[in-house]
Parts: sequence; structure tokens; C-alpha cells
Amino acid sequence: MKYPNSGKVYVKPNVSASNRGMSLEEDINRTNQYYLSEDIAVIHKKPTPITIVKVDYPKRSAAKITEAYFKLPSTTDYNGIFKGRYIDFEAKECESNTSFPFSSIHAHQIEHLRSVLKQGAIAFIILRMVNYDKDFLIKADDFIAFYDRKERKSLPYSWIEEHGFVIGKSYIKPCDYLSIVTEAFEV
Amino acid sequence: MKYPNSGKVYVKPNVSASNRGMSLEEDINRTNQYYLSEDIAVIHKKPTPITIVKVDYPKRSAAKITEAYFKLPSTTDYNGIFKGRYIDFEAKECESNTSFPFSSIHAHQIEHLRSVLKQGAIAFIILRMVNYDKDFLIKADDFIAFYDRKERKSLPYSWIEEHGFVIGKSYIKPCDYLSIVTEAFEV
Repeated sequence: MKYPNSGKVYVKPNVSASNRGMSLEEDINRTNQYYLSEDIAVIHKKPTPITIVKVDYPKRSAAKITEAYFKLPSTTDYNGIFKGRYIDFEAKECESNTSFPFSSIHAHQIEHLRSVLKQGAIAFIILRMVNYDKDFLIKADDFIAFYDRKERKSLPYSWIEEHGFVIGKSYIKPCDYLSIVTEAFEV
Repeated sequence: MKYPNSGKVYVKPNVSASNRGMSLEEDINRTNQYYLSEDIAVIHKKPTPITIVKVDYPKRSAAKITEAYFKLPSTTDYNGIFKGRYIDFEAKECESNTSFPFSSIHAHQIEHLRSVLKQGAIAFIILRMVNYDKDFLIKADDFIAFYDRKERKSLPYSWIEEHGFVIGKSYIKPCDYLSIVTEAFEV
């Protein structure tokens, strides 16, 4: 990830994992679609935040954005409602075998997780350890407690294995995180 | 609002009300900022959904989106958490004196309100009647009950006055809707 001098825009990392099948985002979106169709939960990914600079309004056709930039997100990417509870999470793919670097999560997003926890949210991180082919759910309060100790700049894989909950998958629910939410948060 | 033939993109309506001061969106955003800073609630507007077609990656500067289109929203614009409860709403400005046309709210958004109500959400519409200089909170279930009767294509102002809750305003909370939520939903 590259932060240019302005500090206001950033180069969006390419998180697609097309070489190894579906990306985590696609898997979560498909699972959310299933949850929605079965009235299990209503959870959506937020649109990518951008700053629009220029828009053309051609006659008889759709408005065309001709200049826009990616903005740093001020919240996590996903939120919604499940069994009457507010759900909030961030999803990340991690290519390393040994640890998940904190630099992959923006400071604003960690502050956002703190804020929603204060309000009683069910908040967590979904972490795909790409090389292990495993998805983990990590409770936001566990993550923040470790982060706040400031002893390390990443979550070691051993910590992830100890504190994370492995998320199951099936064809219709390629990232069935709500089964884990029920267990981990006793909802 | 203009729907081109493709059916997938639409011309975003210009909802700014710069001639008469702050727009409803700006007022809600400022109020949400206050709620957040005082640990009252965490509620954000979702970014405008767009389809990105082309991105330039110039050396040494930020990625530039050079072709993108507005997408129809599939959810409401605002959601978040307040007193442990999931909050979900749409905000609309209405220029008419007599009624609020249903065509101002997309069918997807009404379906979204139904879905979150089933999950136990606190869901509503904030309606700014521009010419009366009044903001109303209308409970989503009241709105949907009227809408489903299919007797009219708009909410008459008399109905809005009878069923809506008038939202107070102050300098720091230019659209203090959570005070009304507490009353209307007994939170």
C-alpha cells in the first residue's frame, strides 16, 4: 500500500485472488446473499468510498464520472443486523504464513471497532490466511487488546490459531461466519 | 430522475439545497459527528455506490478513476448502532407542499427496509419538507403499511403530519433524530 504525499488519497491495493479462485470478498458477498434470501440476516458490504471530482452529463445517457479518487475508509467494510443485533466487521486476506501485519488495517477502522464495541455491537475481523486455506473469525475485543499492548506490529499466526475461530464453508455459504458468531458471541 | 435503457445505471439526482443553507445530508452528517464524538451512537452514511470501469495508476501519485457510473442503491443510505440497537434509515428532501412521491424511494430500498424490520431493526425515513422547513421521522412500518395499500402514489402531507414525528434542531445537532427515536421506538 502506497500513501502519496497529500495524505488524502491512497492507491487502492489489488486484493483479488483470482489465481486461487474466489476472493474473500466474493465469498462473503455470496454468503450474505444466502443469509438475506433465507431471512437469516441483513448484512452488506459498503460501497468503496471515493471522492468524485468531475462528472459528465451526456444527453440521453447515464451520468459519467470522469475523475474520482479512492478515499481512505473511515469505517469497516461490512455491517448489518442478525437476530436483532448490530453486526460490524472488517475482512482481510493475508498472504503471509507467519503473521498478519497491523498495517493492513487502517487506524480509522480500529477506532471504528472501538466505537461500535462501546455501543454493544458484535464486532470482529474475518481473516483469510491464504496459504493455509483457512478463514478465521477474530473477536474485535481480543484483537484490540493485543493491538493495544503495542508489543508487536503484527498478529502472529500462533496467536491467530489460539484466539481465532475457524469458519466453515460450503458451496452455498462459502464463508459461513454467522455460525461462528452464534458460538463465539453466544447470540 | 432518468432511467436510461440499460436499466443498470441512472442519472443521479442533484439533491443539494445550497440556496437555502445546509442540505439534509449535511445536517445529518454533522449530527452523526456529534453523536459519535459524545459516544451516543455510531451512525454513518454509506458511500455512493458506483461501478468503476477504468482506473489509471500514474507513477508516484494516487490512482485516478477515469470512468465510472452511478449505481442504483440496494440499501438505505444510513445505518449504525444506538443503545445496542441496529438503526437503519433513508433520508429524503421533498420540494412539494402537498405530498411525498413514492417514486423518490427506490423499490430496492423499500425491500431493504422490510428485511431489516424482520430482523428487529429500528427503521425509519427522515423526510425534510423543504417548504415547511420541517424534518419528520416516519417509522418504516407505518410507511410500508400505507405504501402496501397501493391506494396512492405519494404520502399526503396530512398523513405525514399525523404519523410523522417532528425532529428538533440545534446548532450542534441540526437534525437531532435520535431524541425522536428514543420517544417513537421506546428505546
